Amino acid sequence: MRELSELSGYKNKPLKMLNNAGIQIGDFIKIITKTSEYSGNILPRYEYSNEDFIVIKMSNGYNIGIDSNKILSINKINSGEEPKFIPPSKPNVKESLPKISILGTGGTIASRIDYKTGAVNPAFSAEELYSIIPELSEYANINTELISNIASEQMNPEDWKNIAEQVVKKINDGNQGIVIGHGTDTMAYTSAALSFALVNSPIPIILTGAQRSTDRPSSDASLNMISSVIVASERKLNGVYLAMHSSIEDNEVSIHSGTRVRKNHTSRRDAFQSIGIEPIAIVNQGNVSINNQLSIKKNKFEPKINFDDNVSLLKFHPGFNPKIIEGLIESNVKGIILEGTGLGHVNSKCNNSIKKAIDKGIFVGMTSQCLNGRIKMTVYSAGRDLLDLGVIPLEDMLPETALVKLMWAYGNYKNEEIQKIMTDDIAGEFTERSILGR
Amino acid sequence: MRELSELSGYKNKPLKMLNNAGIQIGDFIKIITKTSEYSGNILPRYEYSNEDFIVIKMSNGYNIGIDSNKILSINKINSGEEPKFIPPSKPNVKESLPKISILGTGGTIASRIDYKTGAVNPAFSAEELYSIIPELSEYANINTELISNIASEQMNPEDWKNIAEQVVKKINDGNQGIVIGHGTDTMAYTSAALSFALVNSPIPIILTGAQRSTDRPSSDASLNMISSVIVASERKLNGVYLAMHSSIEDNEVSIHSGTRVRKNHTSRRDAFQSIGIEPIAIVNQGNVSINNQLSIKKNKFEPKINFDDNVSLLKFHPGFNPKIIEGLIESNVKGIILEGTGLGHVNSKCNNSIKKAIDKGIFVGMTSQCLNGRIKMTVYSAGRDLLDLGVIPLEDMLPETALVKLMWAYGNYKNEEIQKIMTDDIAGEFTERSILGR
Repeated sequence: MRELSELSGYKNKPLKMLNNAGIQIGDFIKIITKTSEYSGNILPRYEYSNEDFIVIKMSNGYNIGIDSNKILSINKINSGEEPKFIPPSKPNVKESLPKISILGTGGTIASRIDYKTGAVNPAFSAEELYSIIPELSEYANINTELISNIASEQMNPEDWKNIAEQVVKKINDGNQGIVIGHGTDTMAYTSAALSFALVNSPIPIILTGAQRSTDRPSSDASLNMISSVIVASERKLNGVYLAMHSSIEDNEVSIHSGTRVRKNHTSRRDAFQSIGIEPIAIVNQGNVSINNQLSIKKNKFEPKINFDDNVSLLKFHPGFNPKIIEGLIESNVKGIILEGTGLGHVNSKCNNSIKKAIDKGIFVGMTSQCLNGRIKMTVYSAGRDLLDLGVIPLEDMLPETALVKLMWAYGNYKNEEIQKIMTDDIAGEFTERSILGR
Repeated sequence: MRELSELSGYKNKPLKMLNNAGIQIGDFIKIITKTSEYSGNILPRYEYSNEDFIVIKMSNGYNIGIDSNKILSINKINSGEEPKFIPPSKPNVKESLPKISILGTGGTIASRIDYKTGAVNPAFSAEELYSIIPELSEYANINTELISNIASEQMNPEDWKNIAEQVVKKINDGNQGIVIGHGTDTMAYTSAALSFALVNSPIPIILTGAQRSTDRPSSDASLNMISSVIVASERKLNGVYLAMHSSIEDNEVSIHSGTRVRKNHTSRRDAFQSIGIEPIAIVNQGNVSINNQLSIKKNKFEPKINFDDNVSLLKFHPGFNPKIIEGLIESNVKGIILEGTGLGHVNSKCNNSIKKAIDKGIFVGMTSQCLNGRIKMTVYSAGRDLLDLGVIPLEDMLPETALVKLMWAYGNYKNEEIQKIMTDDIAGEFTERSILGR
């Protein structure tokens, strides 16, 4: 990971202005222009940004670039030494409360801004996290472990396996619930992965994260974490869920099914939405209300935690080049999830390549880029032709969930079992099953 | 296109039952089971479907499969002769009304169900379409032309060019507005394509379609078409829009910006949604109300109607294989739109391949699979590293719109102009422009 300081190269006029004012990267400064006044910590200049601009991180957490040609005055208010962080002492907790394990994997929920450089560092251990939300001691007897420190876009299927292994250990250790702090970028992929790997888990496993880091006033970290611990400590649900803000208000958290949830906004606190179903539960003011009364499955808990990432997700579009499919065939991919249009279509120009893939034994499943609604490949000839070729319709499974499920299927089952696994409802990935032909 | 009759092979018990009852494909039949009663037109059996099932199309338009082992009785009600379609005579229209051109391209809005086979056939000419919605004569003096007959998943960038050429002709013919009937699968791609190709169009160009064919009681075709003609005949808007139902009620149509709209449901009538902005206008009971007061651009109308489809859209996911990028480089692709996670990230395992692409002169632009919200690649190191490699952040442009724009950019501009074109706001593809670094 490149250090920001390497890139701090202001030049020309901005550099002169900063030098004249005795300002160093990280200092808290005030800038006055003809029309406005700005204050914040000065950030390094990225090579990408305009040479004339000075960039500061304002107290609302956002960065702003100010054209040096419009600056009337620039002054240092405070030097940018990072405020020392002293973790509070661990509160006393009652041994009688439910035993809950909080696992840290990295991501914004476990991060603080480095005021010296403006960077967001994944620096909190889960232990620190616990100590800054002392309310948690009212609900649970908590143990914490930082099992990785990975920004979630860097997560790979082998990381899912690692998390699943740690969860199994914590279940065997007698925890009544498990909360996993996770970066938000790929949290919905991980929640799908754990939903399959840990199907029939006897206890609740709650993934949660934060869209804003804990040192910003608008942080969603505390409410998400407290609500997750509450759900984990009650015996109302089992299985894998994802807990994030229901709205931009800081008062309610939605508990989403691990296989039916999607990050649908880049920055809002209520970015995560259940697709095709209501959230499974809501936590408001500490009270858990169940929307979908799930029958708690009594099947045996037999974790299957392997993933084979030799599969691909292809999003179809007009002008899609079938050579991409040919390339996957040549690279010996095991399976392909198509994200088709509408009810499950692609341009018939792709059909030869799809046939070649299926003839070679590659699983090809169809989902829709519409995200909402069910595919139905019998209505139009494009869909019927694909069915004839052997494309498997995956009803209303989300494309991302279908991809993760296919990795899991190839990781744990034989080739001849893949189609059955992909079309069986394993972890709530399908909403109400359709009747044949519908 | 394969005929359904080729696939009509019922076998064994279902075949015997049908033969005994003297039933042929397309007949309207009644089936009684232990628990229910069904009636509808019998469909051919697809090879894919269960051998034990008999499939009928019910009067609500949906297909249902009934297990022959549960059937108590099966009877023919009517034979399946297709009802004869007699187009009504053309109504008298006032020459003084606005002159509007309706172009047909294919798709459900121009289709009827073939009751003999249950298939949906794109069979209406635009002329026929006109004659079955006589209300249109109250609003406009209409001319129609069927310029193609393509199910929209079969549309290619060369079809966009053809449509654009026909639109330019109709503008030159003195039409005051143009309505284009289009299949819904890729209608949002086409609306983006025409938005760029026909930027600064002096008149309104409205794409519209139907999620249900015109012979189903739930069809949305009439309201969508009437509302489109009304908008096309008023002088309130210019440019390219997409008009579809606002809700599942059959009373209101939303007029979406051509570059900010997405098909977000496989089957609902209100499948299309504006992303990041409100619909530009609403048509309710024939009244047009403008939500977003757009300034009508006075720039010269200079159509640029070429598209180069040698570009790709890649949706990133955990486990994404960078070899796919390498394959595109080898096949001499000109540009790549990445659909990254969150604020615009991919796994750093992809960085080498992305660098190779950019070093070779391939344009690489970043969008987010979150669909809503703006990317911001300066917050986390994964984003900053990609910026350093030369990945171009495309703010809140929709991934599909970015792909279409890149095809258009390479179709009409020199290589050295591509980056400027992609980051300039040409046709409302960006919502409010961000301030630098935000």
